[in-house]
Amino acid sequence: MRHSKNIAIVGTGLVGSLLALHLRRSGHTVTVFDRRPDVRKVEFSGRSINLAMSNRGWKALREAGVEEEVRKLAIPLYQRAMHVNSSPVYFQKYGKEGEAIYSISRGVLNRKMIDLAEAAGAEFRFEEKVWDVDLSEAKLYTGESEKGEWKEYDFDLIFGADGAFSRVRHKMQRQSRFNYSQHFIDVGYKELRIPANADGTHKLDKNSFHIWPRGEFMLIAMPNLDGSFTCTLFLPFEGEYSFETITTEAAAEKFFADFFPDIHEEISNLTRDFFRNPTSALVTVKCFPWTYYDKIALVGDAAHAVVPFFGQGMNAGFEDISDLMNLHETHDNDWETIFKEYQERRKPNADAIAELSYRNFMEMSSKTADPKFLLRKKIEKKFAEKHPEKWVPVYSRVTFSDKPYSEALKTGDMQAKIMDSVMSLPGIAEKWDSEEVEQRILSLLEESGNR
Amino acid sequence: MRHSKNIAIVGTGLVGSLLALHLRRSGHTVTVFDRRPDVRKVEFSGRSINLAMSNRGWKALREAGVEEEVRKLAIPLYQRAMHVNSSPVYFQKYGKEGEAIYSISRGVLNRKMIDLAEAAGAEFRFEEKVWDVDLSEAKLYTGESEKGEWKEYDFDLIFGADGAFSRVRHKMQRQSRFNYSQHFIDVGYKELRIPANADGTHKLDKNSFHIWPRGEFMLIAMPNLDGSFTCTLFLPFEGEYSFETITTEAAAEKFFADFFPDIHEEISNLTRDFFRNPTSALVTVKCFPWTYYDKIALVGDAAHAVVPFFGQGMNAGFEDISDLMNLHETHDNDWETIFKEYQERRKPNADAIAELSYRNFMEMSSKTADPKFLLRKKIEKKFAEKHPEKWVPVYSRVTFSDKPYSEALKTGDMQAKIMDSVMSLPGIAEKWDSEEVEQRILSLLEESGNR
Repeated sequence: MRHSKNIAIVGTGLVGSLLALHLRRSGHTVTVFDRRPDVRKVEFSGRSINLAMSNRGWKALREAGVEEEVRKLAIPLYQRAMHVNSSPVYFQKYGKEGEAIYSISRGVLNRKMIDLAEAAGAEFRFEEKVWDVDLSEAKLYTGESEKGEWKEYDFDLIFGADGAFSRVRHKMQRQSRFNYSQHFIDVGYKELRIPANADGTHKLDKNSFHIWPRGEFMLIAMPNLDGSFTCTLFLPFEGEYSFETITTEAAAEKFFADFFPDIHEEISNLTRDFFRNPTSALVTVKCFPWTYYDKIALVGDAAHAVVPFFGQGMNAGFEDISDLMNLHETHDNDWETIFKEYQERRKPNADAIAELSYRNFMEMSSKTADPKFLLRKKIEKKFAEKHPEKWVPVYSRVTFSDKPYSEALKTGDMQAKIMDSVMSLPGIAEKWDSEEVEQRILSLLEESGNR
Repeated sequence: MRHSKNIAIVGTGLVGSLLALHLRRSGHTVTVFDRRPDVRKVEFSGRSINLAMSNRGWKALREAGVEEEVRKLAIPLYQRAMHVNSSPVYFQKYGKEGEAIYSISRGVLNRKMIDLAEAAGAEFRFEEKVWDVDLSEAKLYTGESEKGEWKEYDFDLIFGADGAFSRVRHKMQRQSRFNYSQHFIDVGYKELRIPANADGTHKLDKNSFHIWPRGEFMLIAMPNLDGSFTCTLFLPFEGEYSFETITTEAAAEKFFADFFPDIHEEISNLTRDFFRNPTSALVTVKCFPWTYYDKIALVGDAAHAVVPFFGQGMNAGFEDISDLMNLHETHDNDWETIFKEYQERRKPNADAIAELSYRNFMEMSSKTADPKFLLRKKIEKKFAEKHPEKWVPVYSRVTFSDKPYSEALKTGDMQAKIMDSVMSLPGIAEKWDSEEVEQRILSLLEESGNR
């Protein structure tokens, strides 16, 4: 039997609790710390974006033996529902027949994951604030306040699963030669809600991811099991339409009425939530290294926070755990090797999904209403359907596969180059579905394959 | 008379003491804090690189009325002295007749600047550690240790001049939407020393900046007033020749003998210093914003640390002070406006000098020995001499002008594009000084000007 380690995890979010579950199943002693109260006992924060669980997330849950449990909490979304101003809603399938992403409420999933980890024997210590970490000794220091009395804990390993503003990473950052960046975009977000109909049914198609792209800003809505939708308004902090300018109820009502006429019955709900819920910022965090010898490792957002526009934040974090546990399987308790291979394998993929998520931010907010962009997508789609083995769209590579994100980025760049060239063909708008265009793409693919 | 403010500066380095001097001259009360001891009373740290004072630095000193005092500490360097393996030393003039950069020992200059600021009435509080800053109230908290008793100070304004690992910035970084990055290069450095001859004269040409470019690594030497040279060895942390591999005296001696044969008499000095002095890392720090309302501002490395390969770190910091004080002149005590304009003006220039410094790292270490690079430089030089109004080299724009760094970067990119095109002309090695090439550059310049 494997020698059992005494392991701390800082952070009881999704990634922390999945890791706790896995490590318990491997026979380790696991203590999970969180500065916040138990999410099972309090109202969730009102700053959440619904999760879009996709292939990588399911794979990690399957490996932890809890896929079926979680499936019960999820609603499959087979398509985007595009609410473009003054057009009827139209739908874009995400993938092939049966391929879907799954909407899950963050609060609901988090509570379930903690339940599962606790049932497996992990100890959860809520409202216990970690203030300092001794990296080389794997010690944690907790207490009421940063300047007050601290309690010292001794562990064999510590995982930082404490999110984009990780305290564990903060300590690693003080070492020399630790690369780090945090970059905020100029757009923030706000959680809003569309309640269920009186009979508990959904007010919009429940198997779609709803998008209202409006150039500088965007509203999205994802279904919940109780018939409601969790909406997220992405809006600039400053500018004509922004969190800075929409400060009165009248202004908010006018904003919702002007830009989201097809849900005008929800205006009072949206307006109420607009002023009740906090405005949150969106950050990309990159750092390296992610580990410290055989003592410390960062996982999930603590290592690689991304903007949410590819719906991959949680999936990428779950994939960290998947990779880590596979390495644990291979290298048993040789944690120095595990951590080394973990960061080498994950870092390029984390950078790739950060880049892809940022690009999707540009695409979803501003381009989804641009006719040239739509034409481009139409050409790609037609070609991909006819030559599925030659053209797997980036979205599918990211969402419906478990091949490395870095490969998806590389292929995406290659495809983008080809499409740039195709879109510059004279008269492309007219001849977009001609054999000439198809042949052109085939020959460009050939060229790029031979390079 | 202008209303006097009670101002704190954190950091008694070059930029902090220049700012203290300036603010005293403007009638403010100034207290300068440093966690380290008074540099006038202790041996300097042995991790210094000699300063190359150039136009921007001198301008700031002139505005503070101390240019002449500092000139006495400086040795003009008119040229690079290139020590290329197995060739005799050759020289490259820096600029036009009389243009020079000035070698100054960091310790010597820092002591002088503190003397000057103190004489002007600034209060210096050494060995007093700042642990926390209240941004909105402009309060400082100091004490023996982070967890111990703290003393509270109340100010009107606080400047963070506390370097690349600034504590003041650290506090600003905790705000939402604060962009930050720290990026270390894989090369570190070590201070070494070549002592004077017995008669006090210099062992190498004293009016040159000496460079031994060796591909992956590089040695430089800059003269001091006492006849010695401060040398800096830039060497990778890992790899064949690296701080990781050179760990014995024998290995160091062999390294110096193999690669720096023309200073083989210095081997024992170099070897002694190699093991006595610390190895330091090199970091680029970027952040934004630099200011907090009318309360807090970052200056110098705290706002924009750059790698030292353009010799502009201190010059850029001094230029911050120059710009700040000019804005103070214009806007009197409207510090909110001063800070806003200061960061808007300086940020693009700080980003530009970071980029230019990083590029020079690539250029100085690996390319200065490459024949193609030397040919390229030769063509540029010839053209610049013939058409001085049409082609001011980037080095001159950065070093011998006070036009914005961002313009130098832009012009540099344009020139690089032209030179890429020129270098790809067939037979360029033979016809490099032909009229054809000259005409080609002229027409490319014309084109780029019309774009």
